[in-house]
Amino acid sequence: MTRLLFALTVTLLSFVALRPIPQNRKDTRPNIVLIVADDHGREALGCYGNPVIKTPHLDQLAAEGTRFTNAFCTTASCSPSRSVLLTGLHNHANGMYGLEHREHHFDSFDAVQSLPVLLEKAGYQTVRVGKFHVAPERVYHFQNVLQAGGTNDPASIGRSPVAMADLCYPLFSDASDKPFFLYFATDDPHRSNAVALDGSPVFMSDKPNLFGNRPGGYPQVHDVFYQPFQVVVPPYLPNTRATRMELAQYYESISRLDQGVERLVALLKETGHYDNTLIVYLSDNGAPFPGSKTTLYEPGMRLPLIVKLPKPQKPGFVQDAMVSWVDLTPTLLDFAGVSIDQPVFQGRSFKAIIEQERVTGWNEVYGSHSLHEVTMYYPMRVLRERRYKLIFNLAHALPFPMALDLYHSFTWQDVLQKNRNLFGKRTVEAYLHRPRFELYDLQTDPDEVKNLANDSRYRAELKRMQEKLKRFQQETKDVWVSKWEFE
Amino acid sequence: MTRLLFALTVTLLSFVALRPIPQNRKDTRPNIVLIVADDHGREALGCYGNPVIKTPHLDQLAAEGTRFTNAFCTTASCSPSRSVLLTGLHNHANGMYGLEHREHHFDSFDAVQSLPVLLEKAGYQTVRVGKFHVAPERVYHFQNVLQAGGTNDPASIGRSPVAMADLCYPLFSDASDKPFFLYFATDDPHRSNAVALDGSPVFMSDKPNLFGNRPGGYPQVHDVFYQPFQVVVPPYLPNTRATRMELAQYYESISRLDQGVERLVALLKETGHYDNTLIVYLSDNGAPFPGSKTTLYEPGMRLPLIVKLPKPQKPGFVQDAMVSWVDLTPTLLDFAGVSIDQPVFQGRSFKAIIEQERVTGWNEVYGSHSLHEVTMYYPMRVLRERRYKLIFNLAHALPFPMALDLYHSFTWQDVLQKNRNLFGKRTVEAYLHRPRFELYDLQTDPDEVKNLANDSRYRAELKRMQEKLKRFQQETKDVWVSKWEFE
Repeated sequence: MTRLLFALTVTLLSFVALRPIPQNRKDTRPNIVLIVADDHGREALGCYGNPVIKTPHLDQLAAEGTRFTNAFCTTASCSPSRSVLLTGLHNHANGMYGLEHREHHFDSFDAVQSLPVLLEKAGYQTVRVGKFHVAPERVYHFQNVLQAGGTNDPASIGRSPVAMADLCYPLFSDASDKPFFLYFATDDPHRSNAVALDGSPVFMSDKPNLFGNRPGGYPQVHDVFYQPFQVVVPPYLPNTRATRMELAQYYESISRLDQGVERLVALLKETGHYDNTLIVYLSDNGAPFPGSKTTLYEPGMRLPLIVKLPKPQKPGFVQDAMVSWVDLTPTLLDFAGVSIDQPVFQGRSFKAIIEQERVTGWNEVYGSHSLHEVTMYYPMRVLRERRYKLIFNLAHALPFPMALDLYHSFTWQDVLQKNRNLFGKRTVEAYLHRPRFELYDLQTDPDEVKNLANDSRYRAELKRMQEKLKRFQQETKDVWVSKWEFE
Repeated sequence: MTRLLFALTVTLLSFVALRPIPQNRKDTRPNIVLIVADDHGREALGCYGNPVIKTPHLDQLAAEGTRFTNAFCTTASCSPSRSVLLTGLHNHANGMYGLEHREHHFDSFDAVQSLPVLLEKAGYQTVRVGKFHVAPERVYHFQNVLQAGGTNDPASIGRSPVAMADLCYPLFSDASDKPFFLYFATDDPHRSNAVALDGSPVFMSDKPNLFGNRPGGYPQVHDVFYQPFQVVVPPYLPNTRATRMELAQYYESISRLDQGVERLVALLKETGHYDNTLIVYLSDNGAPFPGSKTTLYEPGMRLPLIVKLPKPQKPGFVQDAMVSWVDLTPTLLDFAGVSIDQPVFQGRSFKAIIEQERVTGWNEVYGSHSLHEVTMYYPMRVLRERRYKLIFNLAHALPFPMALDLYHSFTWQDVLQKNRNLFGKRTVEAYLHRPRFELYDLQTDPDEVKNLANDSRYRAELKRMQEKLKRFQQETKDVWVSKWEFE
């Protein structure tokens, strides 16, 4: 019965959608669609080299647009990362130091002017659907909320990306004179947790997490299943049955998400918007596994970024400029023709270089992580250059705190229970107890295993990067800059 | 000229005030005046045994009312402590984990029902004057704000306690049928700091802080000066010229505050309210010196509490029941005849025992400190019994973080510059680097110098108290309870 209903809806939608919508807008500025995936690491995407996972529609988007190979979040934690995306400010400057929900309770300063608010002022219709996870609402205000999601809600629309896309149809088919900014944020492929009556999470540490997958699937989604033996275990994870079982579920969640992108693109095309819409696909942070999410190691911060220009000149272009999520708000405002005094933002627009070859001046990014859960105080600052990377662990005397969902993951618990020394290429000990500074040569050590901070041959490199990092903190009004002196 | 104006105002006010206000209220519930001093340690009060400081009006209040000798804040940090006072919940349960202002930016959960809101619902007029420092306003809403203060504002009314009291006159002389709840919060005797144009503090570490004292003084206040040789240096502070110079300034600030209490009481008497008003005097936390404020050592958490009942039966009574600031909201609601399901609060009303001799069942308090400034993550939990005290330093691997104003204090800088090993009776090293557990026998070691946590003779005591402390965390929904397991 339910299936029949779905089929009917699809047919009906196709029928409605096939009527071309007249596009006679006076305001010719592009629509902007920002797709934010939840915990989608770049190692789990076809167009980023994974030969197993099925992401044909994201791959197609990359084939039509530009794929960035050096795109980074600035903090590998959901709420803070989204706050950076939507403000052009590091979390230490916008106030969103950690997670927004429940007892974590972080939110941004009232004085912050966010992307949707600035776009609304500039005449855009601003609409969001799916996961929000930033606060307060008045700072991150969108004019229209199609349906809110959230990984803590088992019935969240964010697990149903095709249905999410369908919700956008009225926006696309509306004959408004205004261009739109659509913020499309899925819950996929975040881990899914059972939730107790009081809203607290319930973990099952001896089984793979389901990443939102469920028997019967989701409306209009055809499930893509993976077998543990098929998946590609990245170097930062242990090659165990537990990890493989979890990765298989993770892939399935990503293939579902891919179909949401398929539907979204289809509806944009059917309503005649596709050639006047900027589409950006990215993730808030890396995969929800220890070694990635909540860390500033490469798997946590180096992420997918696909940009489909309204009218691409170089379909399938691969851009290796180093950009970060703090650049996103300035970039999207640039597309909207909004000019804001540059000093307001801590990033800068990369609009001009998207399809440019041999870009100069985009050779480093900075990152700033403060907390994740409120009990997970572990501020880190990072300078990522092409070759070297410096991580400053401000509270290094503490054990590295584990997010509850990662701690209870089958992948991690399996390692603990079997008393393994290694987690991926790192020792468990090194993962949990970190030095004040970590300096890596990514050219010779892409997996960030060999810390050069105490190697006298790298003393000059270390000093140079420490000075840059400290200057970054001073210039971006980072109160944690005091820790250079005091701790 | 200014002096003339003051004199005129005083005369005028006296004239107006001397007309008796008819008190024919139908609602006979008592008015409530809650006076909250800022950083007033109990060692700097005449009625608590200091033979030098001049606090005649606070002493008089104690002589007419009840003086508590075992009253404790639950966290020695301004905003969190006030949040506890005004909610009956520990800061870890109300969300106010640290300071409210500037980049610290903590605030309470929207679902929290605060004392002023509950009293307003119960038919009280709710009015505040002076320092607020909690957020959001909608949670801590007062119907009327006479004038807001705050130690970061050099022109704050909170430094002018007599003028603050005068502002309350219209409230006292109003013929309203409703009783009032007046929240009277001074900035005295907090340290005063010069503030730069962007609002950031400017410190002078080589001179005594002025604690709000200024040439020319404040309206209607007669300055009481102290000489460094006169002051009483408490055991937790080094007996140095720097400390003494700072204490002299601190005392002056407290004698100013005392005059605010004088005026407030005078106006309550003149308007006929005194015998139907509950007056509570207390401080948010201990003195603004290292070793006290931001710590859970005795000077930081054991505080003055003077309760003047509407009609005292035992003037000058000394009560040794152990109470804490989490008990205050239930107690004041009890006076207002408001019945709330007890489980809402984490404290309990001590109304019934105020003048009771040989009280039973009030022999312990719990405390919970999370952060002060946002960079000062150092959660501690404490169980304070009559004899033993257990402090659990959850992030003990970190150096104990110093509040900016305490770090830059002349008292502390003098110790650093002279390379002294001792700060009061503790070593500087012990003050900055603390073990996971601190267990003190206050009977033999009132200055908390000898940690017994690793002494095998106290193993049973330690275990017993650890279990109680953990249970407290579980029962009060403390998310940091996870640290027993994970760190």
